Amino acid sequence: MTLILNNDDVEKALDKEECLQAMDEAYHELPVGRAVNRPTSHIYTAHSLPQATYSFKSVEGAVQKFGILALRITSDIVREEKHDGSTRLEKLPLAGKGQYLGLVQLFSIENGELLAIMPDGLIQQTRVAVTSALAARALCRENATTLGLLGSGGQARSHLRFLTSVRPIQKVKVFSPNPDHRITFAAEMEKEMEIPVEAVNSVENAVKSCDLVCSATNSSRPMMTGALLEPGVHYNAIREFEVDESVFEKSHVIAIHTRYGGIQHFLPPGLKEDLPAIRREKPRDWSRYPEISDFLIGRATGRTTDQQITFFLNNVGTGVQFASMGYCVYRRAKQAGMGREIPTEWFLQDIKP
Amino acid sequence: MTLILNNDDVEKALDKEECLQAMDEAYHELPVGRAVNRPTSHIYTAHSLPQATYSFKSVEGAVQKFGILALRITSDIVREEKHDGSTRLEKLPLAGKGQYLGLVQLFSIENGELLAIMPDGLIQQTRVAVTSALAARALCRENATTLGLLGSGGQARSHLRFLTSVRPIQKVKVFSPNPDHRITFAAEMEKEMEIPVEAVNSVENAVKSCDLVCSATNSSRPMMTGALLEPGVHYNAIREFEVDESVFEKSHVIAIHTRYGGIQHFLPPGLKEDLPAIRREKPRDWSRYPEISDFLIGRATGRTTDQQITFFLNNVGTGVQFASMGYCVYRRAKQAGMGREIPTEWFLQDIKP
Repeated sequence: MTLILNNDDVEKALDKEECLQAMDEAYHELPVGRAVNRPTSHIYTAHSLPQATYSFKSVEGAVQKFGILALRITSDIVREEKHDGSTRLEKLPLAGKGQYLGLVQLFSIENGELLAIMPDGLIQQTRVAVTSALAARALCRENATTLGLLGSGGQARSHLRFLTSVRPIQKVKVFSPNPDHRITFAAEMEKEMEIPVEAVNSVENAVKSCDLVCSATNSSRPMMTGALLEPGVHYNAIREFEVDESVFEKSHVIAIHTRYGGIQHFLPPGLKEDLPAIRREKPRDWSRYPEISDFLIGRATGRTTDQQITFFLNNVGTGVQFASMGYCVYRRAKQAGMGREIPTEWFLQDIKP
Repeated sequence: MTLILNNDDVEKALDKEECLQAMDEAYHELPVGRAVNRPTSHIYTAHSLPQATYSFKSVEGAVQKFGILALRITSDIVREEKHDGSTRLEKLPLAGKGQYLGLVQLFSIENGELLAIMPDGLIQQTRVAVTSALAARALCRENATTLGLLGSGGQARSHLRFLTSVRPIQKVKVFSPNPDHRITFAAEMEKEMEIPVEAVNSVENAVKSCDLVCSATNSSRPMMTGALLEPGVHYNAIREFEVDESVFEKSHVIAIHTRYGGIQHFLPPGLKEDLPAIRREKPRDWSRYPEISDFLIGRATGRTTDQQITFFLNNVGTGVQFASMGYCVYRRAKQAGMGREIPTEWFLQDIKP
């Protein structure tokens, strides 16, 4: 049977320790050729709404020991919107009753079958945070007790949950430009995590005197600079646009997620300049940096003193992350009989394709 | 509702004239930026069977006026097998009860929803043959009455159906190395097409004195040479491995399907040399040739005399082909109430991915 899961199923099936372990195993499998990635591609076409574009992303990855290849896709309508003088790309909830479509599809690498289809929302937040947590375990001081957080969305929540599970965090400060957002976040997460979470009114105040700093925003302008990095801190960023060049310069140890950084963009011929809401970043040369898997398998050297500044840039997602988290969800969901079942043969054929 | 179709549904929903028209429209949309392709990628990982490899392919394309983006994927176990001294890659039917998995998934570019999932088997055969037929309409002599066919599989059948619908073919000769295959093919297709179909015992006999020649094989060694091309013939190949260099040299007009010829292969790091059953072709420089859409929109000049030899190499598939055929199937299937329906909201989420 092919399993159809929703985000409630995924939430129940995702176990923190299992996620950390599976992802850690995957990063050990990658360098020895038992896991593989196909980097992300984005394809675009014009949309009927003004300043909007249809955007379809896909990425694949397989981990042999999990028996799984994961395909992650998103099917979005994206619009350019002005906020405080800067332009942001907003996804529009035009599917169903104001919803979004993003899916993780799991395939068996033993028999080829479609094992499961599930939404990508929670898996997406989890796979980023799990990787950040593994990087913190490799690079952050073991006695880190204070966490400074920038951002108050799903990624910030997920990072708070996972970073506190790898370091003995006793106190959290959070900043988000919108006071309501940071106050609500602090109240909710303090209750959930059972440690003090304080909303503060600036990036500087969030970061000051923290052992571990994490930005988890959708900002496309740098908010972190080298000047804010204090001796001994481990800094975790989830998007390269969150940081300026001085962060790279001031860090003693830099790790990135993957050198497969080059997202491929496919635009209609002749429309390259006219299509709105396209992310037009300049590609950075990721080949200069060691990957987090290099630190996890001991091929790269992490922090050697408590005074060094370490920096992990969780730069680009990979299919192997989706395969690992998908495997965790699928195994638990199967055991617990979660989700809806569709006959697998609905998706099979006798014709050799 | 999201429509789940099988190959019986697809067969009923595919109308020959509609397919030709939709694909022709798509080729007119491409050059003006209202259709877009993401080229094919293949990703591999080791399989537990000896000499076998797991292979996952994906390709995407969208046609704005059809409102559709198509994702086509195949999830295969491929094994190297020896036949008559040469090595062939065979797909193993390990899914379900000896079946294969290949899917076309259709997404709405207006609201992002998953519209339909269907097997790729018949669509795959049809999209190749429709493109070949459009090329024949552009390049083959209008009074072509004889067709020489190499191959007796699904692609050969599909090409016979579509090529006879664009030219007044009165007689067909077919060659396939296996006598049983060519005799069965001739008998069945003669009955279906209601024109004489003769099984012949060599490539030379199949090709001789034909106005239109089509190879539709899975051969990885050249079977067609320039010496076999007679004045005035139009030759259609569906794989570059079917022809040798002299075919290019002897042809007066050459058209290819797409300059996006570069399939991207992703192999596990360190396993590039060890993994069996990987297609390791040398990439040809496709940028030298005009595409079939150039001929359809009048940007390239086709045959100018009845004596010229024209050659169409249907080199690599594109997502736009799947979007066009998928659109034809989806529209008819919806009208006729075919297939199984799954609530679209099963695939949606409130989380902004």
